[in-house]
Amino acid sequence: MSRNLVIAAAQLGPIPRAESRSSVVIRMMQLMEKAASRGAELVVFPELALTTFFPRWYLQDQKDIDAFFETQMPSEETQPLFEAAIRLGLSFSFGYAEKTQDAKGETRRFNTSVLVGPSGEVLLKYRKIHLPGHSDHEIWRPFQHLEKRYFEVGDLGFPVAEALGGRIGMCICNDRRWPETFRILGLQRAELVLLGYNTPVHYPPAPDHDHLQDFHNHLSMQAGAYQNGAWVVGVAKAGHEEGCDLIGGSCIIAPTGEIAAKCVTLGDEVIVVECDLDRCREIQDNIFNFAAHRQPDQYGLLVEKA
Amino acid sequence: MSRNLVIAAAQLGPIPRAESRSSVVIRMMQLMEKAASRGAELVVFPELALTTFFPRWYLQDQKDIDAFFETQMPSEETQPLFEAAIRLGLSFSFGYAEKTQDAKGETRRFNTSVLVGPSGEVLLKYRKIHLPGHSDHEIWRPFQHLEKRYFEVGDLGFPVAEALGGRIGMCICNDRRWPETFRILGLQRAELVLLGYNTPVHYPPAPDHDHLQDFHNHLSMQAGAYQNGAWVVGVAKAGHEEGCDLIGGSCIIAPTGEIAAKCVTLGDEVIVVECDLDRCREIQDNIFNFAAHRQPDQYGLLVEKA
Repeated sequence: MSRNLVIAAAQLGPIPRAESRSSVVIRMMQLMEKAASRGAELVVFPELALTTFFPRWYLQDQKDIDAFFETQMPSEETQPLFEAAIRLGLSFSFGYAEKTQDAKGETRRFNTSVLVGPSGEVLLKYRKIHLPGHSDHEIWRPFQHLEKRYFEVGDLGFPVAEALGGRIGMCICNDRRWPETFRILGLQRAELVLLGYNTPVHYPPAPDHDHLQDFHNHLSMQAGAYQNGAWVVGVAKAGHEEGCDLIGGSCIIAPTGEIAAKCVTLGDEVIVVECDLDRCREIQDNIFNFAAHRQPDQYGLLVEKA
Repeated sequence: MSRNLVIAAAQLGPIPRAESRSSVVIRMMQLMEKAASRGAELVVFPELALTTFFPRWYLQDQKDIDAFFETQMPSEETQPLFEAAIRLGLSFSFGYAEKTQDAKGETRRFNTSVLVGPSGEVLLKYRKIHLPGHSDHEIWRPFQHLEKRYFEVGDLGFPVAEALGGRIGMCICNDRRWPETFRILGLQRAELVLLGYNTPVHYPPAPDHDHLQDFHNHLSMQAGAYQNGAWVVGVAKAGHEEGCDLIGGSCIIAPTGEIAAKCVTLGDEVIVVECDLDRCREIQDNIFNFAAHRQPDQYGLLVEKA
């Protein structure tokens, strides 16, 4: 298999609360068709791609919350997406709210992403570990960020899969700000990290930093790429959604940390880059040769409780 | 004590092998005077500030190697620097090659930096942990990078001191590329990280990245600042030194990751910024509130052997 992988970042514009999953899936299929026409072999969609970003609301009725969750994947509404990918011979990844039952029959809810192969099979699943925001209703905020209320911390670690000719890991949104995320993927020699995000421009606890949201987004992802020698594909749900502005800036970043392509709208948009996975070696074998240069004996504090 | 600290980054241009320590100390004192005239309370000098960057040569005679090491600090040649700082009421930090004896009488050699207070007292000492380069003579290289030969891995961890009204940590050169460094300092709630570097433009194992050296320098330091909510002062030895080009780009970075000031020459140059240490809270109490958001249970791989 070639070590060149043609990857599309498929940014989504706003999804109103009233928009159905079926409508969103049609938008995603249109982006998929466009990506395929430009040679893409892998299409990366955002976090919680199927609905509006519901953690912005404090919902008290569990039925209202669960309406945003998927209990099976594919579902009736998402099946056409899987079928389109099979027809186009594409792989794709996307995020969704996952409601499941564990071995004990307990209901569990996660902020999840999956990588789906060209035959419609799930190649990799990840459940978000760094949940941002808060767990209680904070009425002083103009909008809520209740991920800590609606989701549990992911229980799958940061898995890396041999897939599509390379080694692929995933993370989700706030995970990308934490160098621990990229390093744990890097230590598993990930060559490609796929991630989606829903990032409000306005951060209520520190509004003086609102103008820095795009900078912080790219800074975190570029550092993660460079310091681990991995391609990073970061994909936004962007634009003005239910009164809340979300950043765009979806991009594909080389293992050197350079942005190879970047979205320039806040709507549905596709960018495509031919990614040479062998270029990871330029970094991973040299400046960030972990075996030669890391000093794990010195890092004990990283795993101690805060 | 005020939480505003006026900090100078004092970049040094090239130091030829034949230049004496006394001559370098005069240059450093001139920069110190200039910094003081612009209100600086703390002056940060580069790594191995007193001599040329000697790890570029393969030296076989231990006497020739030891000629670049200090056996006491201050020494006769560096005493004027300490006296100037006392006279000006300044604190300062700088790097030097340290030759010492441990409790067993064994000779130890480290790449060291110290922070010296306004009375000439050492407030903080650090010995470089992430030694870059190689330990054997690699004749294919146009110049060597023999830090792994001439120095041991530092044995002081990454200490943080309560000093100058804040919490201060240090690291040295290659340490800055490793997010582990900044995180360990951040977990100790460092508000200010001082570091010096000697970074060749040309990196022999991956010369195609030479044009990215300045980008990688700033990317690593800006990410380290933002992801830990700390001011970072990074200071170069710059310019064409003994046939080797060293990057400049010395800068003072805010806890937001923004570059507040940056050198624009490759020679001796001073930049000064008034740093409000209270601004660290904007990051450390919010997006990077470690107690609220880190997941150390998930980080085991970070401390496992490569």
